Amino acid sequence: MHRGGKLEVRSTVPVRDADDLSLAYTPGVARVCTAIAEQPDLVNEYTWVSGVVAVVSDGTAVLGLGDIGPAAAMPVMEGKALLFKEFGGVDAVPVCLDCTDVDALVETVVRLAPSFGGINLEDISAPRCFEVEDRLRALLDIPVFHDDQHGTAIVVLAALQNAARLTGRTLGDLRAVVAGAGASGVAVTNMLLNAGIGDIAVSDSKGMIYQGRDGLNPVKQGLAARTNRAGHTGSTEEALAGADVFIGLSGSTLAERAVASMAGDAIVFALSNPTPEIHPDLARRHARVVATGRSDFPNQINNVLAFPGVFRGALDVRASAITENMKVAAARALAGVVGGDLAHDYVIPSPFDARVAPAVIAAVAAQARQDGVARK
Amino acid sequence: MHRGGKLEVRSTVPVRDADDLSLAYTPGVARVCTAIAEQPDLVNEYTWVSGVVAVVSDGTAVLGLGDIGPAAAMPVMEGKALLFKEFGGVDAVPVCLDCTDVDALVETVVRLAPSFGGINLEDISAPRCFEVEDRLRALLDIPVFHDDQHGTAIVVLAALQNAARLTGRTLGDLRAVVAGAGASGVAVTNMLLNAGIGDIAVSDSKGMIYQGRDGLNPVKQGLAARTNRAGHTGSTEEALAGADVFIGLSGSTLAERAVASMAGDAIVFALSNPTPEIHPDLARRHARVVATGRSDFPNQINNVLAFPGVFRGALDVRASAITENMKVAAARALAGVVGGDLAHDYVIPSPFDARVAPAVIAAVAAQARQDGVARK
Repeated sequence: MHRGGKLEVRSTVPVRDADDLSLAYTPGVARVCTAIAEQPDLVNEYTWVSGVVAVVSDGTAVLGLGDIGPAAAMPVMEGKALLFKEFGGVDAVPVCLDCTDVDALVETVVRLAPSFGGINLEDISAPRCFEVEDRLRALLDIPVFHDDQHGTAIVVLAALQNAARLTGRTLGDLRAVVAGAGASGVAVTNMLLNAGIGDIAVSDSKGMIYQGRDGLNPVKQGLAARTNRAGHTGSTEEALAGADVFIGLSGSTLAERAVASMAGDAIVFALSNPTPEIHPDLARRHARVVATGRSDFPNQINNVLAFPGVFRGALDVRASAITENMKVAAARALAGVVGGDLAHDYVIPSPFDARVAPAVIAAVAAQARQDGVARK
Repeated sequence: MHRGGKLEVRSTVPVRDADDLSLAYTPGVARVCTAIAEQPDLVNEYTWVSGVVAVVSDGTAVLGLGDIGPAAAMPVMEGKALLFKEFGGVDAVPVCLDCTDVDALVETVVRLAPSFGGINLEDISAPRCFEVEDRLRALLDIPVFHDDQHGTAIVVLAALQNAARLTGRTLGDLRAVVAGAGASGVAVTNMLLNAGIGDIAVSDSKGMIYQGRDGLNPVKQGLAARTNRAGHTGSTEEALAGADVFIGLSGSTLAERAVASMAGDAIVFALSNPTPEIHPDLARRHARVVATGRSDFPNQINNVLAFPGVFRGALDVRASAITENMKVAAARALAGVVGGDLAHDYVIPSPFDARVAPAVIAAVAAQARQDGVARK
């Protein structure tokens, strides 16, 4: 499947004869260039720019493989571009960069920006990814979206909303433990806090993150200040005793006895790929709802449920940014697709459910208009 | 034709169900990434990288329009990408950069390089374009080709070889005057010198370039040292008296009387676009062979005759560079397509001649092998 790559660039206009050629290229194209030079906004009308997304990575945090460099990251970015097209009708170009310094990454993407209508950051290691995204969002007036953070967070929020509904609870009723303080762990935590989760605590490889723990980087210090009201200082498994929700985004393992120690109607999202923190069959012995990142078990938490529609919706209204509200709207729309069919093994729709993308696109575009970031 | 742009990215593999998805993306793609991380050369096997060209511009010398910036340059780069695909089967991505400093351009393209199998530089103003290309050629092990220079030079050399043949002369018999010392003027002059032209002199907006002229930049000083053996110091038109060949690459105008002053069997290539230096009907009153950049007159000198085949041939053998010999081989192949049909109004084939690309591809690939730059 991967031999020769998974993408091609195609022309959308015919070039059959000299007339076509002189319209598509010189001399005819000069009129188009002059028009854009005089009225810059026309670039969105007369080029593909406003519809094309750069899938940008430096290859430092690729899947569960870690820092494998830009060339080895390319199959993932190509795959991502393919999914953008297949699931959202979004043209996307994989861009693997041979630099890892934050300043260099930001500078390079800013220089590339005139060629693209949106920037999807991918597989950039934490904590650099947070600064890269923050700075690019401040510098650019097109959507910048680190999918490992926000794509995951949107789908987790959607699934958790439905899991809470299934068990007759609201998010505010839930106490959650998140294993993993990388890109997705931080973003999921922030999104759940914004959505009003009852309590949430986060662990990294050294155990629970709490205020005053030695050696926390600034991002984790921020997390510590906003989470873990119960003051857990031990291991993830200790913190899980009596908790309602486990969300694994760490590549670690979770013992069955820890799931057994959770509250009734427990919700376990074991999202590490390709190996979940705990096998879903084991988790199901004790938990009411189990989700993984795998397609061969129920409730697959797959970013492809979010990013194609989020970008398509944002590009359709030429949004200058993807706001927090737009992400929440995407999650709500995604959860809504499940509707009355909600069940313990169906808290999130399948990526192949044809209702998903239209629902997310419409919700994101409408929210962009409400938030005043739509330019069309 | 240009509304919404002229390109799209498409998937070359199916994603119909969860199995396809888990092969094209996670978890299946991880195996491909790991393989490339262990054996970097496999990126050429298992991604599209080795077949895709970046069409890179900073928008500083777009067509005859000058420095109109990266956004307004995009329609041209899109058109170029379209021609790459239609005429050479080469996937190409337009990349308009928001920086014009030589160091910044070089640095940015180097950072982008892992994503591409070749770099086509386009519409970067002289003399910066020479340094940008030279430095990138030294830093990268993939083809780097400034088409405004070398594409034009290849097609001019092909047409001039045929025009000389038509009139029973060799290149060594010809005395040429080139109007224009920008990217294409310099490259055409260098290529004709390498090919053994009898004499050649170059003018810029201030008149003929000669050794000792005040205020010459280093590139023009180099030109002065290698050209103008006759020592012309006046205007282009003065130097044309008795000359065999005029090559206009300047956007200037040429008076009919200057063409009349040329030697018998004069050859006039009035290549400025969209307005040739002299109308071809006027030039034909005095010249044996007249070529322009226009498709509505005979003998169109169009870069599309060269660049798609040059890159396709280079990529097919995974050439580490495009050598001078490869360019000469492309010109020879292009001239050869005309063959026995040679006539005053047919010194160069049509871009739509289906024999062109295969001839250029084969010649470039074979020469790459001979030059030892082929890696496949």
